[in-house]
Amino acid sequence: MLIVMHHSATPADVQGVCDVITALGFEPRPMPGEQRTAIGVVGNDGPIDRARFHGLPGVLDAIPVSAPYKQVSLEWQAERTVITLGNGVQIGGEALVVMGGPCSVESEEQIMAAAAYVARAGGTLLRGGAFKPRTSPYAFQGLGEAGLKLMAEARRRYGLAIITEALDPQGAELVAEYADVIQIGARNMQNYTLLKTVGRLGRPVMLKRGMAATIKEWLLAAEYVLDAGNPDVMLCERGIRSFDDATRNVMDVGAIALAKTLTHLPVIADPSHATGRRELVTPVGLSAIAAGADGLIVETHPEPTKALSDGAQALLPDQFAGLMSKVEGIAGTLGRPLARLG
Amino acid sequence: MLIVMHHSATPADVQGVCDVITALGFEPRPMPGEQRTAIGVVGNDGPIDRARFHGLPGVLDAIPVSAPYKQVSLEWQAERTVITLGNGVQIGGEALVVMGGPCSVESEEQIMAAAAYVARAGGTLLRGGAFKPRTSPYAFQGLGEAGLKLMAEARRRYGLAIITEALDPQGAELVAEYADVIQIGARNMQNYTLLKTVGRLGRPVMLKRGMAATIKEWLLAAEYVLDAGNPDVMLCERGIRSFDDATRNVMDVGAIALAKTLTHLPVIADPSHATGRRELVTPVGLSAIAAGADGLIVETHPEPTKALSDGAQALLPDQFAGLMSKVEGIAGTLGRPLARLG
Amino acid sequence: MLIVMHHSATPADVQGVCDVITALGFEPRPMPGEQRTAIGVVGNDGPIDRARFHGLPGVLDAIPVSAPYKQVSLEWQAERTVITLGNGVQIGGEALVVMGGPCSVESEEQIMAAAAYVARAGGTLLRGGAFKPRTSPYAFQGLGEAGLKLMAEARRRYGLAIITEALDPQGAELVAEYADVIQIGARNMQNYTLLKTVGRLGRPVMLKRGMAATIKEWLLAAEYVLDAGNPDVMLCERGIRSFDDATRNVMDVGAIALAKTLTHLPVIADPSHATGRRELVTPVGLSAIAAGADGLIVETHPEPTKALSDGAQALLPDQFAGLMSKVEGIAGTLGRPLARLG
Amino acid sequence: MLIVMHHSATPADVQGVCDVITALGFEPRPMPGEQRTAIGVVGNDGPIDRARFHGLPGVLDAIPVSAPYKQVSLEWQAERTVITLGNGVQIGGEALVVMGGPCSVESEEQIMAAAAYVARAGGTLLRGGAFKPRTSPYAFQGLGEAGLKLMAEARRRYGLAIITEALDPQGAELVAEYADVIQIGARNMQNYTLLKTVGRLGRPVMLKRGMAATIKEWLLAAEYVLDAGNPDVMLCERGIRSFDDATRNVMDVGAIALAKTLTHLPVIADPSHATGRRELVTPVGLSAIAAGADGLIVETHPEPTKALSDGAQALLPDQFAGLMSKVEGIAGTLGRPLARLG
Repeated sequence: MLIVMHHSATPADVQGVCDVITALGFEPRPMPGEQRTAIGVVGNDGPIDRARFHGLPGVLDAIPVSAPYKQVSLEWQAERTVITLGNGVQIGGEALVVMGGPCSVESEEQIMAAAAYVARAGGTLLRGGAFKPRTSPYAFQGLGEAGLKLMAEARRRYGLAIITEALDPQGAELVAEYADVIQIGARNMQNYTLLKTVGRLGRPVMLKRGMAATIKEWLLAAEYVLDAGNPDVMLCERGIRSFDDATRNVMDVGAIALAKTLTHLPVIADPSHATGRRELVTPVGLSAIAAGADGLIVETHPEPTKALSDGAQALLPDQFAGLMSKVEGIAGTLGRPLARLG
Repeated sequence: MLIVMHHSATPADVQGVCDVITALGFEPRPMPGEQRTAIGVVGNDGPIDRARFHGLPGVLDAIPVSAPYKQVSLEWQAERTVITLGNGVQIGGEALVVMGGPCSVESEEQIMAAAAYVARAGGTLLRGGAFKPRTSPYAFQGLGEAGLKLMAEARRRYGLAIITEALDPQGAELVAEYADVIQIGARNMQNYTLLKTVGRLGRPVMLKRGMAATIKEWLLAAEYVLDAGNPDVMLCERGIRSFDDATRNVMDVGAIALAKTLTHLPVIADPSHATGRRELVTPVGLSAIAAGADGLIVETHPEPTKALSDGAQALLPDQFAGLMSKVEGIAGTLGRPLARLG
Repeated sequence: MLIVMHHSATPADVQGVCDVITALGFEPRPMPGEQRTAIGVVGNDGPIDRARFHGLPGVLDAIPVSAPYKQVSLEWQAERTVITLGNGVQIGGEALVVMGGPCSVESEEQIMAAAAYVARAGGTLLRGGAFKPRTSPYAFQGLGEAGLKLMAEARRRYGLAIITEALDPQGAELVAEYADVIQIGARNMQNYTLLKTVGRLGRPVMLKRGMAATIKEWLLAAEYVLDAGNPDVMLCERGIRSFDDATRNVMDVGAIALAKTLTHLPVIADPSHATGRRELVTPVGLSAIAAGADGLIVETHPEPTKALSDGAQALLPDQFAGLMSKVEGIAGTLGRPLARLG
Repeated sequence: MLIVMHHSATPADVQGVCDVITALGFEPRPMPGEQRTAIGVVGNDGPIDRARFHGLPGVLDAIPVSAPYKQVSLEWQAERTVITLGNGVQIGGEALVVMGGPCSVESEEQIMAAAAYVARAGGTLLRGGAFKPRTSPYAFQGLGEAGLKLMAEARRRYGLAIITEALDPQGAELVAEYADVIQIGARNMQNYTLLKTVGRLGRPVMLKRGMAATIKEWLLAAEYVLDAGNPDVMLCERGIRSFDDATRNVMDVGAIALAKTLTHLPVIADPSHATGRRELVTPVGLSAIAAGADGLIVETHPEPTKALSDGAQALLPDQFAGLMSKVEGIAGTLGRPLARLG
């Protein structure tokens, strides 16, 4: 933390700030300059609330210097986190993973069809929502536990690991009984009760970035899960909200590249929600891989025009296969193989 | 819903879209133009997922026409919602309410001191967090139920109604035992399990707008609460996130004015979180009143520099009194009195 | 400038940064901490490009400390700028000004009608575009010099000062011959050639904030005009672009309040462009006054449904009169009168 | 244009809207529904100002249906624009181009060194600013015509085509005498006088997207240049402004992919300004290629730590060579070669 004093701050103002720093148990380091004085805060191990200084007499600004997160940081753990799933597939290693499947589990026929062609095309995880967070209370909300059972059956038949979303603590416990990876959605990125719950459940977690969350907030949300005892967290960039509604969201490829320099956690990208339009999913998915993502999660549906939710962004089966082969091509030029089922 | 066809769409494409509309149980109304055909969807009572059309051959765009919310809409209920609290104060009527108090309940001494001067200055509700959603897992998380008991005691002594935040379903049930109004924070605006829970608890709810939520999404979130059986919902604009970090958020006064034309629910404004800086709270609070807000929720602390959270945005006691008198002045020119304790 | 070193930076890295600072003519002040070292830069009178440090070995971040603007700053000039126009009206003093008129000058009949009722209702400046920046090349682009002549004739008849926009250097010279205030539009906020030109023309300038400009960039743009020799600059907040298209833009009332604490220049607000909807102009205009704006610029048209541009946001004549009387009320409670024609 | 009527609109309201449509020379198509009536506008060849309808009695919304741009649209010209430069290099064809060079031309030694290694590494255009738009008036503003002469000399020696920015109409005429491509910067995307000028100059133009410009506005800005007679326009995505300052901007890869479906103009990407950090330039540049960009413009400097502007985002010479070889790899998997000097 650096406290920047106003041009006209008095020595008493400077002393007042130093006293507050000392009272907090840290050490003040005043740094008088030609135009103004700045005061460093030394000795703090964790973050300090900048608000403690903002209103003091003579204070112009309080600037955080240390990153507020810790366990997720590459500064503190240099070795990259690699998460091994039940089917042996690893996330965060050299090999890239592709997770495919429908937005929602709708029926046995639908999910088995999806699992079959996802596995055949080289996918290693099956996605599919059983509990759906819907903006409108009148929209389809998912099949619930019946959907989880269908996912588990698909896993049994096709060997794919399964990933599905939990919306609340009770749901998370249920999801943990069935799924290989618990997904926390963008709307719940700062649902701290849920984060602490999945931190205790001992299942790998995929944490989606909130649609207007900074990278720092995203990493701090992951820190909640690690701090509750679960080191198996992967991040998922799914597009941020912008001023332009031409696409549903904006895939923040710079955030993917930057996150890889800040944290040891794997970073997955979701081009389906980032674009909201089927014809953009493949180019934007490839762009995420080129930016350094460790994998993709992609919506695909056997018959998108009959989908109960988000059909417009679901790839057709042959489009999914086409994506897989292009991902493999791009990955190859980056020296990374594609993860495969054993 | 209006389906806009591509310039080069064929008659078969148009027919295909009409068939999907018919299959969904609605009536298609093709509208051929000079440049392209558009197809209206008639007969839908609720929203249709535009995604159902986005990927069909020849479709350029699918544009929602009806508002997707209903029970919250001023189109469907012309009479404004007025919420009567335990201490007789009404929210949403002619009189404006001001809720004041600290970010967090920290001690008996602190909350009683705050309640005393908030009541004396003309406030009618006491705010104070017992469960705090904190971006970092290492920040102060609140006193929990002990904080609720202190709030209830302050109510007993000073006659103020009390408002406090619930973070999850269990917490909401606890909060409902103590508080007059349950606050849902911005980070939880789309925590649907929580919304459904407070929809069943029979306590008035204040729903903060998510930091990147559209007005439509905010109203749909409120619709969840009404749809679960609770009509006593007030909205709270607390600033949206922008590209400029000069202030913590941007108070969207246009959203306040617009919401008053779209919904019968009361609209409260939170200038403390909208600005994050004490010196801006009063002018921005007044601006929200001028834009048509039904009240304010304001952070104030007996000794802000000792606050455990958000001290920089807390008004000093005499600043809070100054705000009250200015609010009364502005309200007067708009023909609105200030709500008072009985 | 504060240079924050990486946790693992070596003493040689720190020395390297110090050497660069010295080479730039400044003085390095290393500040070793428990976790990392930070290095202050002392002696810089103006801004330093943080980019000079970002790529050096061991550097984590470079944080600007001083504000990069100077002549516009309240830190450096404590006395507020008051601009006196040809008709004696002052902007930036105690009295609030209201500028009214159509988006575009369309005809003699239209502009005289507007001027008549604007003056009658208590407005002191007439606005009206002769050169229009239009998003589409196919939209109405304004009457040009003929429009300026009509504005000047309206000034002669009704005593209003006139304000109109210049789009480019040549246009600015022409506008300066006719207008009392030259308006620089949001799209041109960083058109530096234009800023330097109006800096030399000796006419008061109203500088609109760019739709995604930070407050710092806005003040720096004003600094260009002052630095070119023209101290008579007023800022204009006209709404920033957000993720929600429910309103055209978002009036940033916090920026108005904050700007008044950062600069001595007057701050005007434009509720017409901030909202884009007639029914929101009055509440949002009042909110800007409540936040501390020194005046408003408002679109009003004798017959908005016949307007050649932006008719939806133009107040009807009687709505403009209603706005004036409400502005006067709000201003009164803040202790500020309304400027009047002599 | 579709006019959506309010739920409670009367037949007279509907008729009123139809009359306005007829008066504008178009044909109204009322479409009564269960909940409300919508009215289509048929026969308009260009855009209609939605503002004409927004304030009419009974009107809820006016929704544009046709795209407002035309000459840039792939709907109206199916053949992609390929621009051939003086050195024979083509932009917009199968082959990808890479433009490299420093932010600013600083000296003969610097620009020749840059040109030499850019050409050696496989670049085909040399970038370098002679006129710099700087946020602060106190920052380095470029060498002016002397810089242009140095660029021309570098072209003569190394065979690279040259691209440089014009800030205003006079500057554009000067730039056109020297450069192969005139760059219009993000801040000037809606500087219409400048757009019309470069539309008349007969030189290829690269139009950067404004930092908060929608794709529609960007295409409309390009339409200004085409409409003024210059078909040789390439677009450049350089990152949009977001709420997170962790990177300078956000490369909108979805906009690149979408633009390729909307327009026949080539699309270039600028990963240097999109990220602002050297270590992110390569991954984000590759991501833009994977998303479908026709080329990159990249800042590189022989000695970035001595750069007079933007040094932090400039690649070192060997990093530029590394980028080139990775671009070639990614391009190869997409079936596209790299453009080469003849």
